[in-house]
Amino acid sequence: MEKLVSAQTRIADLGKPRVVVIGGGFGGLEVAKGLKGVKAQTVLVDKFNHHCFQPLLYQVATSGLETNSIVFPFRKRFADQEDFFFRLAEVTRVVPEDNVIETSIGSIRYDYLVIANGATTNFYGMQDVTQNALPMKTIIDSIKLRNIIIRNFENALLAEDADVMNSFMDFVIVGGGPTGVELAGALSELKNHVFPKDYPELEIGHMDIHLIEATPRLLNGMSEVAGRKAKEYLERMGVQVHLDMAVESYDGHTVRFKSGAELKSRTLIWAAGVTGQPIAGIQPEVLGRGRRILVDEFNLVKGYSNIFAVGDAALMEGDPKFPNGHPQMAPPAMQQGRLVAKNIARLIAKKTLIPFRYKDQGSMATVGRNKAVVDLKAFKTQGVIAWFIWMFVHLISIIGFRNKFFVLLSWLWSYFSYDKSNRIIIARPKDGVQ
Amino acid sequence: MEKLVSAQTRIADLGKPRVVVIGGGFGGLEVAKGLKGVKAQTVLVDKFNHHCFQPLLYQVATSGLETNSIVFPFRKRFADQEDFFFRLAEVTRVVPEDNVIETSIGSIRYDYLVIANGATTNFYGMQDVTQNALPMKTIIDSIKLRNIIIRNFENALLAEDADVMNSFMDFVIVGGGPTGVELAGALSELKNHVFPKDYPELEIGHMDIHLIEATPRLLNGMSEVAGRKAKEYLERMGVQVHLDMAVESYDGHTVRFKSGAELKSRTLIWAAGVTGQPIAGIQPEVLGRGRRILVDEFNLVKGYSNIFAVGDAALMEGDPKFPNGHPQMAPPAMQQGRLVAKNIARLIAKKTLIPFRYKDQGSMATVGRNKAVVDLKAFKTQGVIAWFIWMFVHLISIIGFRNKFFVLLSWLWSYFSYDKSNRIIIARPKDGVQ
Repeated sequence: MEKLVSAQTRIADLGKPRVVVIGGGFGGLEVAKGLKGVKAQTVLVDKFNHHCFQPLLYQVATSGLETNSIVFPFRKRFADQEDFFFRLAEVTRVVPEDNVIETSIGSIRYDYLVIANGATTNFYGMQDVTQNALPMKTIIDSIKLRNIIIRNFENALLAEDADVMNSFMDFVIVGGGPTGVELAGALSELKNHVFPKDYPELEIGHMDIHLIEATPRLLNGMSEVAGRKAKEYLERMGVQVHLDMAVESYDGHTVRFKSGAELKSRTLIWAAGVTGQPIAGIQPEVLGRGRRILVDEFNLVKGYSNIFAVGDAALMEGDPKFPNGHPQMAPPAMQQGRLVAKNIARLIAKKTLIPFRYKDQGSMATVGRNKAVVDLKAFKTQGVIAWFIWMFVHLISIIGFRNKFFVLLSWLWSYFSYDKSNRIIIARPKDGVQ
Repeated sequence: MEKLVSAQTRIADLGKPRVVVIGGGFGGLEVAKGLKGVKAQTVLVDKFNHHCFQPLLYQVATSGLETNSIVFPFRKRFADQEDFFFRLAEVTRVVPEDNVIETSIGSIRYDYLVIANGATTNFYGMQDVTQNALPMKTIIDSIKLRNIIIRNFENALLAEDADVMNSFMDFVIVGGGPTGVELAGALSELKNHVFPKDYPELEIGHMDIHLIEATPRLLNGMSEVAGRKAKEYLERMGVQVHLDMAVESYDGHTVRFKSGAELKSRTLIWAAGVTGQPIAGIQPEVLGRGRRILVDEFNLVKGYSNIFAVGDAALMEGDPKFPNGHPQMAPPAMQQGRLVAKNIARLIAKKTLIPFRYKDQGSMATVGRNKAVVDLKAFKTQGVIAWFIWMFVHLISIIGFRNKFFVLLSWLWSYFSYDKSNRIIIARPKDGVQ
């Protein structure tokens, strides 16, 4: 962008307290929504112009859903909200002493700041893994992964050497959390129902899907029965689940494990964990475990009275059930976001703040058609009923009637046709593998 | 791609005559479809893994349709067709003396070759226009254009200087054919119904849409009344139509016309014409007007008995109604493709060839909601009825029930909501303007 333009942000000063929200994920979106009707100016800053429903990224990556069904433009969401401003920008620094953030389009003054910039893929400092493995945290990651999965099969067709062919057809997913489990399940559906028809020239039996988990079980955040059932479903679907296996290195062709074992694959998908992405200007002493920002029970960043952090970016200690901070999932982020909006309104009205209490509604993961695991407060269930619960919960959580409707139709279509329709490569050969 | 893989194409030799089709657009697709049941091996080579319904690219560019609704994976289309092979590759050379094509993944032998690689944007040799204008011929072009249109508005918000702001809000479309007319209409719908809500901070009156045509009328391929009505509709919708204006230069900021006039805009969309993209190895003496390959009445390339060319890539002289070759649109390409498949079957069966006769079914263009122009053989019509005919014809032409259904739903949604939902930027700020 030219200097001319990036010099300033042109946000009108409304003479009201200004709340700047960094990041429009689950947490930040709830803050912005919660400020509707509050006598404040809301400025949402995000590096994308749309919210992304991250729990379904894996379905975009595996050709099940269209990109557009799981993203929603911020400006459309907030078109009716007065005193709301959006700016497409990357935040580079917070300057608390001046109540200002610096961004790619200039600096923005705030009265209240909410840091809701989420988390990023954690490669645990392994340089070769960072370089060669594929993350799946953004919509761009998902589209790249979709391109790669399909291009791998086009390449496998061409390989003279059996080992080379195999390395294109094998997929290694690291991380036995919901993302890894769901992705492994979706890949096995491609293997079982789609690729045999698309690639009759290839022996589909050569396609191996490995799910790697460093601990002794899958879905560590869920009940023991959920983890066990997920493993059982995945194995029934042909996924090779490896527990107690930790990756040591990956050069783009061979995954080496700490045990000395090896797997050959051109595609290592990294879903093994996330880490905070603290913004410059936030003092290192307020960073806790996982580089999350330490906050008090009001989500106020330690040492500040007008800077909040919510969701994956924030670490609230003191909840006896979650001594290491709340899980880095949508529900805590949304609940915190809602309360922060309310508390900012109370601060403006000079009322006392309400402390955060996490309402744990349980968690769930889907493995494949008719197969999911659900841990709710009231009960746990696995199988078809769990699968329906999973679909229902995700459908109602997607923003916008149109997106809900298109996702539902896509699911119905896939269910009855056993097809995943979006197996397209949006790139030319000369653009490289992506 | 590694050498190991690109060494060869691994297409099984079936001991049957092999028909290689270059390009899976409207023409090439009909050739491949028409070879079903013929005792021949079909090899389709394309640089994308999907067919693209080009007539609706402009709706992707203007956020009306999702990418995936207008593309269709080749492997899915031909999953049930025996002896069909697809290869994702770019063709670099034809070697007629060896009956071989060279591609990015190795060389492929053919018994019959069909060149159906279409046409590309014609910048008429203007270097600065080539560099700074935006084409709209591929799905990637459309996505880039969508990103740019929306990012322009985000940038306009930031401009201090009124001229700079204006240059981001103004769009110049060059070419008054169907693509230019339809794109101008769709942009004016964004202006009239979508952007005022998304960007209340901007004065939407500053958004100018200019449609530039070098000849004295719009839609030169259609009737005089169609051109006149299209102009009337566009002007009613706020588009500034400039006839008899030819572009001389464009530096990315200022469009200069041969008349000396100027327009300031950051976005020049070039829909002013196409040109053939002959493959190396095809002798220059068989190239005709517009770099199309001269073919006889059987679509056989002049001088060859086993190389055909169809559609935009081919120039068949001798049709008294079209002395300069058939129009570069889907219908002639499809009709030629169908006949070429049939004639290849006849060649294999040692029967005589059937000459091509173009059945001109007319043409049409849409301008906006309830506004289209249609020239059919039986009658001409403009307005609502034309608009319904346009939608019906396009819907039935899109491949696949699912795509038809999703396009129809998207249209219904947009019609009743006046909304275009897909206004998303699939790129980060640091990825640059695209």
